[in-house]
Amino acid sequence: MNNAERNLDLVVKEIADEMRQRTDRGEVATYIPELANVDAKAFGIAVIDAQGNVAAGGDSDTPFSIQSISKVFTLTIALGMIGDRLWRRVGREPSGNPFNSIVQLERERGVPRNPFINAGAIAVTDVIVSGHQPREALGDILRFMQFLTNDPSIAIDEDVAASEKRTGFLNTALANYMKSFGVIESPVDYTLGVYFHHCAIAMSCRQLAMAGRYLAHGGRNPSTGLSVVSAERARRINALMLTCGHYDGSGEFAYRVGLPGKSGVGGGILVVAPGKASIAVWSPGLDKSGNSHLGRIALETLTKRMGWSIFG
Amino acid sequence: MNNAERNLDLVVKEIADEMRQRTDRGEVATYIPELANVDAKAFGIAVIDAQGNVAAGGDSDTPFSIQSISKVFTLTIALGMIGDRLWRRVGREPSGNPFNSIVQLERERGVPRNPFINAGAIAVTDVIVSGHQPREALGDILRFMQFLTNDPSIAIDEDVAASEKRTGFLNTALANYMKSFGVIESPVDYTLGVYFHHCAIAMSCRQLAMAGRYLAHGGRNPSTGLSVVSAERARRINALMLTCGHYDGSGEFAYRVGLPGKSGVGGGILVVAPGKASIAVWSPGLDKSGNSHLGRIALETLTKRMGWSIFG
Amino acid sequence: MNNAERNLDLVVKEIADEMRQRTDRGEVATYIPELANVDAKAFGIAVIDAQGNVAAGGDSDTPFSIQSISKVFTLTIALGMIGDRLWRRVGREPSGNPFNSIVQLERERGVPRNPFINAGAIAVTDVIVSGHQPREALGDILRFMQFLTNDPSIAIDEDVAASEKRTGFLNTALANYMKSFGVIESPVDYTLGVYFHHCAIAMSCRQLAMAGRYLAHGGRNPSTGLSVVSAERARRINALMLTCGHYDGSGEFAYRVGLPGKSGVGGGILVVAPGKASIAVWSPGLDKSGNSHLGRIALETLTKRMGWSIFG
Amino acid sequence: MNNAERNLDLVVKEIADEMRQRTDRGEVATYIPELANVDAKAFGIAVIDAQGNVAAGGDSDTPFSIQSISKVFTLTIALGMIGDRLWRRVGREPSGNPFNSIVQLERERGVPRNPFINAGAIAVTDVIVSGHQPREALGDILRFMQFLTNDPSIAIDEDVAASEKRTGFLNTALANYMKSFGVIESPVDYTLGVYFHHCAIAMSCRQLAMAGRYLAHGGRNPSTGLSVVSAERARRINALMLTCGHYDGSGEFAYRVGLPGKSGVGGGILVVAPGKASIAVWSPGLDKSGNSHLGRIALETLTKRMGWSIFG
Repeated sequence: MNNAERNLDLVVKEIADEMRQRTDRGEVATYIPELANVDAKAFGIAVIDAQGNVAAGGDSDTPFSIQSISKVFTLTIALGMIGDRLWRRVGREPSGNPFNSIVQLERERGVPRNPFINAGAIAVTDVIVSGHQPREALGDILRFMQFLTNDPSIAIDEDVAASEKRTGFLNTALANYMKSFGVIESPVDYTLGVYFHHCAIAMSCRQLAMAGRYLAHGGRNPSTGLSVVSAERARRINALMLTCGHYDGSGEFAYRVGLPGKSGVGGGILVVAPGKASIAVWSPGLDKSGNSHLGRIALETLTKRMGWSIFG
Repeated sequence: MNNAERNLDLVVKEIADEMRQRTDRGEVATYIPELANVDAKAFGIAVIDAQGNVAAGGDSDTPFSIQSISKVFTLTIALGMIGDRLWRRVGREPSGNPFNSIVQLERERGVPRNPFINAGAIAVTDVIVSGHQPREALGDILRFMQFLTNDPSIAIDEDVAASEKRTGFLNTALANYMKSFGVIESPVDYTLGVYFHHCAIAMSCRQLAMAGRYLAHGGRNPSTGLSVVSAERARRINALMLTCGHYDGSGEFAYRVGLPGKSGVGGGILVVAPGKASIAVWSPGLDKSGNSHLGRIALETLTKRMGWSIFG
Repeated sequence: MNNAERNLDLVVKEIADEMRQRTDRGEVATYIPELANVDAKAFGIAVIDAQGNVAAGGDSDTPFSIQSISKVFTLTIALGMIGDRLWRRVGREPSGNPFNSIVQLERERGVPRNPFINAGAIAVTDVIVSGHQPREALGDILRFMQFLTNDPSIAIDEDVAASEKRTGFLNTALANYMKSFGVIESPVDYTLGVYFHHCAIAMSCRQLAMAGRYLAHGGRNPSTGLSVVSAERARRINALMLTCGHYDGSGEFAYRVGLPGKSGVGGGILVVAPGKASIAVWSPGLDKSGNSHLGRIALETLTKRMGWSIFG
Repeated sequence: MNNAERNLDLVVKEIADEMRQRTDRGEVATYIPELANVDAKAFGIAVIDAQGNVAAGGDSDTPFSIQSISKVFTLTIALGMIGDRLWRRVGREPSGNPFNSIVQLERERGVPRNPFINAGAIAVTDVIVSGHQPREALGDILRFMQFLTNDPSIAIDEDVAASEKRTGFLNTALANYMKSFGVIESPVDYTLGVYFHHCAIAMSCRQLAMAGRYLAHGGRNPSTGLSVVSAERARRINALMLTCGHYDGSGEFAYRVGLPGKSGVGGGILVVAPGKASIAVWSPGLDKSGNSHLGRIALETLTKRMGWSIFG
């Protein structure tokens, strides 16, 4: 362990300690009943640097529901399948609205603003489902996650998926609304089934940070050398995460943390420091924009102490 | 001139050549009559690296109306005056709407989404005007531009200011609308007068790139060592430019160019490559989002050839 | 036949003749595929006065899909079931938006503006379904129509219902959206099934005019003396028809025709001249607001010639 | 005095008594400071039947600021000047939004939904101003009011007009916004000056009921026989009052009162019972839609007791 590694290790441990002691934790999401069962005091962090060193702290090995973070990976898959034709079905602009807003869909005739709001992620999922049985599409997504992490144990939490399916009236509304404009091609039930399931993938911070390494390193896993996407595509996915990755708190996240990332209502956030590290944090309590409250604070601290902001 | 400098110089010249030959140029803004008189074929570029070397091409010394680019500098001044209290009057989120939309103002009770849409920049200008005569406030802004560029010749194009004042009904609507919610404190005429005038500052690419150096280099001019803002504030202004700097084309700009920047309807764009360079381009033809068409393409080419994207 | 009856008869015949000769007919609705099969040149009219005299012209005995006109009758039933508690679930204001807009639902947290836009009518249908099997609820609605018309032959066009169910993604979106706010209580499939079926009831102008008589005559059928609703409730339903009965063309209809009414995308319009007559017209071609083009013109002519406007 | 007259007189007196005893009075408008000085307990009512008999009660001779009620009369004047060409500049549909909303103006490119929301009334005023000095236009409006009431004492409350001008930022925003779309032709200051002044006309219930008689009686004053507008135009203005006359409470007013009318934030309401009477009430406390709370209740009671609803 050299100085830089030692320093990173130290900073990560400090942050885990500081977060453990904080009493402000935000509110655990309750709109998916199964998510409400989580331990509100959990906090985990894992950082993997360019050399593959892992600095971890807190509950970094506890699996949690990655929820919207899965949208980064389904976007990657869909771009691999149909390339830039994807952008006929979904935009690339921040939404300026809550994650589940249906208003812009009306104004823009069923084409969601970006792939990271719910409607956009459903449209992206529909591309993956196209012509397949839901089970096959879901298998593809899961295998991709297992490939990225080199971990065949990654699985879907069926209880969360079932809970979301039972209560996902808003997503059902969004999907049917897009279907009415022809933006969704598969049967709505197929696409939504796959969507609910990939949001219910359970991963730990360590696994998630491993999965995000290709985005931090020009599209390739720097340890194995395996290429996932081109360097340009990695950059572009990062740009989308920066402008759109945190719902209606994306500007705030860029302002405070200064790194591209994607949050989920399960309390996880995946963040990329280009050329330097892939980072995952988890704390279930959310702020009013639906992003992990302590997760965001931990990342702000990490970026500042490591000097990792992409903005100078 | 070392290799890196020679390379930058070459790339900039190439780009100026390529842009001169393109026939797609977008549409020159006509909503401010005086702006429509500009030469649609003009193209200029200037890049100033960390060492202060200037690589320039095309009409890099022709002054043009900086328009909304001035919002970066008024934001800097207002933050210097009242610090984070500014954020009570203006948000930090991308708007997801055209630059002149009044809709979000209604939903958010007169508080604009960010300092770079028109409403937000008017609210920022109001902070600068506060308690002063318009002439004094305008003097402060102009002196700040002259200080940043070390060039006392920078001036306001009074014809453009007068033209904008005569036809600026939409901005007058926005200002009165915010006033009705108490977000504007000075007389509307004062604040708008200063706003129209600072948008009418005329600068060349070379001057503009010089003015933006503090944002590229941790808040300081690396040649003189003079500090303009703290490193953290420079990073944060960069973050705001990235998420909100190009109206409803901000996501697209981040996706393609990958650098923080701010555009104006005069056809200029100021861009920052943190730690590396301050860049200004100018071409009057605009795309449908109101950003310089060739300017954006030139910047996309520059970032790619120099490997300057902040996203990896 | 006295003079007044003779005059009404004459006017109705004239109108049927004039409409037959017009070449402007609007566009037949195609969004429900089964509706597109109708004869675009059809035109029917039936007027029943206070004494029960029927003046009819054109295709007044051809059954057509009453579509949204059914909303007047389901509103009557739901008010009979739960009275003014209905207004907790649906408003009484014109929407200022197209009939299928989802925007206001977001702003008003799932409570539709009025019972005559799609979302509102679905919420009203949900009240009727409450605690029942769809088949039972539908039976109640159908029996009410048969009672009003004293005609047991009135039936649902199952092809239209099936066609609407297959393609009703927008209504499915609206229903799920309201369900997400708790405004819909029954399973979405139940409520939508009943909704699609009652919209698919087929009736002729003569039957429809008969069904509307209680609204024209203080809540009672003046021929049989049977009371359907109180006089006050009849007045209030008429007021709702006037302000909200024609989607985003309600103001225009009041301005031109001057009588309360309800249109359907099948091309029918039911209109009430309080104290004087119940009127039904049918012509499948629609104007841009989704109301029967010739139907509206026929009604404007009828009101003018008979002096029946409620506005003086 | 015959029985009918005696009955009307009695009902009006009863209502004045009942209203005096109520303690629920709504909130007096404060957004125009001068309006807030009024006596919150004031209540007046005046009814003029077809024969010209006046039944009055309470403060029926106290002048109050008619505010938006003036929009009925400016609409009448503008229609007299340019006829149906007026409808190119303003629509005829209910807005489904608060009276001062700017949102629909954006969606509909500066054309207000109807002549009774603020934006629409400003556009109508602009027609009257067209080519004239504000003083002349205002003189025309005032003379029209004096002609309708046969009362040369009717005047503008200059304090209210000045107060509104000083604080009317929202209306200034609306006017400039429409100007940016070319919907306003005169200088904004001219049009707004006239608008603020005609809203500040002061009239008593008795005068107002007199002014509205032409709308109740086919466009003519039934006592003098003088024609103001055609019978058709009177009907159409009545239709507009019914669908749009009470801001976002228009549906509710039609539902409860069942007569065309126009309210103002000064607490007055002018109502028309076609063929029967012209009615004015006044009570300064407003409900949440901005309509007189007791005024609406008094009118609901009057219509019910007199059986005057146009809906049966």
